[in-house]
Amino acid sequence: MEITLNSPLDMHLHLRDGDMLKLTAPLSEDFAGAVIMPNLVPPVTTPEMLQSYSARIEQAMSGTPFSRYMTLFFTPLGEKELEAARHTPGFFGLKLYPAGITTNSEGGVSDLARADKTFRLMEEMGIPLLVHGESHGFVMDREAEFLHTYRHLAEKYPALKLSMEHITTAAALQLLEEYPNVCATVTLQHLIITLDDVAGGALKPHLFCKPIAKRPEDRDALLQAALSGHPRLMFGSDSAPHPRCRKEACGCAAGVFTAPVALPKLAEIFAAEGALDHLQDFVSGNACRFYGLTPQARKITLRDTPMQVPAAYRSYGEEVVPMYAGESIGWSVVR
Amino acid sequence: MEITLNSPLDMHLHLRDGDMLKLTAPLSEDFAGAVIMPNLVPPVTTPEMLQSYSARIEQAMSGTPFSRYMTLFFTPLGEKELEAARHTPGFFGLKLYPAGITTNSEGGVSDLARADKTFRLMEEMGIPLLVHGESHGFVMDREAEFLHTYRHLAEKYPALKLSMEHITTAAALQLLEEYPNVCATVTLQHLIITLDDVAGGALKPHLFCKPIAKRPEDRDALLQAALSGHPRLMFGSDSAPHPRCRKEACGCAAGVFTAPVALPKLAEIFAAEGALDHLQDFVSGNACRFYGLTPQARKITLRDTPMQVPAAYRSYGEEVVPMYAGESIGWSVVR
Repeated sequence: MEITLNSPLDMHLHLRDGDMLKLTAPLSEDFAGAVIMPNLVPPVTTPEMLQSYSARIEQAMSGTPFSRYMTLFFTPLGEKELEAARHTPGFFGLKLYPAGITTNSEGGVSDLARADKTFRLMEEMGIPLLVHGESHGFVMDREAEFLHTYRHLAEKYPALKLSMEHITTAAALQLLEEYPNVCATVTLQHLIITLDDVAGGALKPHLFCKPIAKRPEDRDALLQAALSGHPRLMFGSDSAPHPRCRKEACGCAAGVFTAPVALPKLAEIFAAEGALDHLQDFVSGNACRFYGLTPQARKITLRDTPMQVPAAYRSYGEEVVPMYAGESIGWSVVR
Repeated sequence: MEITLNSPLDMHLHLRDGDMLKLTAPLSEDFAGAVIMPNLVPPVTTPEMLQSYSARIEQAMSGTPFSRYMTLFFTPLGEKELEAARHTPGFFGLKLYPAGITTNSEGGVSDLARADKTFRLMEEMGIPLLVHGESHGFVMDREAEFLHTYRHLAEKYPALKLSMEHITTAAALQLLEEYPNVCATVTLQHLIITLDDVAGGALKPHLFCKPIAKRPEDRDALLQAALSGHPRLMFGSDSAPHPRCRKEACGCAAGVFTAPVALPKLAEIFAAEGALDHLQDFVSGNACRFYGLTPQARKITLRDTPMQVPAAYRSYGEEVVPMYAGESIGWSVVR
């Protein structure tokens, strides 16, 4: 069995910078493009930084055409600044982090009311707002507690393209039904794992991410929505590489590195559930329609021959452990 | 400020065996005695093994008098075997583990109905049943899902002394109210932490234990019950040492090592809440009354002068990291 995908997109990707960028960028090249997250140190906050980061990514790629949908770390920009951003090649949207909620988000937003003018301008200019939607509450409630903020934004700015990033709960899916201006990304791991896989047996640092994996009924709802072809649910890996030493040491950093295994594993899952005909929309079509994107023309064929996942990816002095490290996945990319 | 405790007891303690026993046993000597858990490899299942283990513990202690309340790993024993156990010096009760639920519990019980005769005999003979009450369900629900089993046991064997070990939820406390033949132990960490402390920020392997720490409202209910002097809630540390390498490596083992910090930290907490007058019952009186114990006569004085907790305890080639490693606790044992 095989499937050929047109221009698959990863709508939420962390490539980092420096040596880690050199290691990870080529491992996303089975995708035709990706939305690139701006939480570097310091974060990407200006058009100049964005262009420079985009150029570093291009350089780190092996030459394969790759659409880099670049984001700015949300700050309360004015009209001039938003105009400048909008006319910056590769600019895609603004990524909003509540302050201190995840890796390198210390400079995030602590009071949304102060950003009202920026949201209004983004709505007028057609600039998407991508949000890491978590409160500072109890870890299992953080997404649920943020939903009223999503509702507030969706209602107050009905023409704003609003993306709930890496959703993890059935409740977030429910909200998606209510507002046509809202879309959501979901990661590979949140279609597969629950908190049981992170902390139900032994503690598994390589499956620890933010938002943390939730309950079985949440995972099941997300998977069913993806398999059934929900038109505003998009694949965004949130692939988040950390050096092996920072994942396995005491106090491990949050993030699952899935970029190199995502497409084969998705094909395996969708095939097993008889839903391969919805995979194209999940990994590309829904995003292209919602945002009006025309990514690099690429065709990627996946086949049900096994992929052996390396125990780690190593180069440039960096070492990153992927999801399914050392295991076998039922499908692979035809090269 | 200071308090002198009469014969404090740790009603749930793991001392392990071999070099780890030699390291950990002396670190529990601020207690006058403890209920010793039987999950060695192989588990302690016969009076001979129990006596031999008790002797090894005595040898590992520094000579301080210490009441060793020894338990047998639950197996469906008959009348003769229970009689033999009952007449074994140091024998306290049977510890029941659902099969495979925690460290070295692979040989546990998978079908409670098959143990009916044993429960009935224990009830007649006055042998306590201590239970690790978790289902095999979703990690946050395991204790709640086991409560109906506690109810079943409490109702079917109304004279059986039944202990819900290391409870972590408000729901378990509620059950405690309903059955006078049921008591419960609670650990130090479950009075203090929630899942947020384990996996809400960075992943913290040294706070990872089974049952896993639950929600803030659960922690708050447990703390209030302890502070208010609930007559059937007893301190049981569940202090569970693992070699540092097994805690910090990928796939870390479950257990928090609290034995050397438990009494000072409890004194600090009870003092801060103006509940010092309930500490004696929590760490000794409740257990003595419920089980009719007369532990070693000992007096331990605690004072509000800080204790500096070592980064690790090392000896006999073993290394264990305690809760509050490298930190300071407001109270300490007067020596």
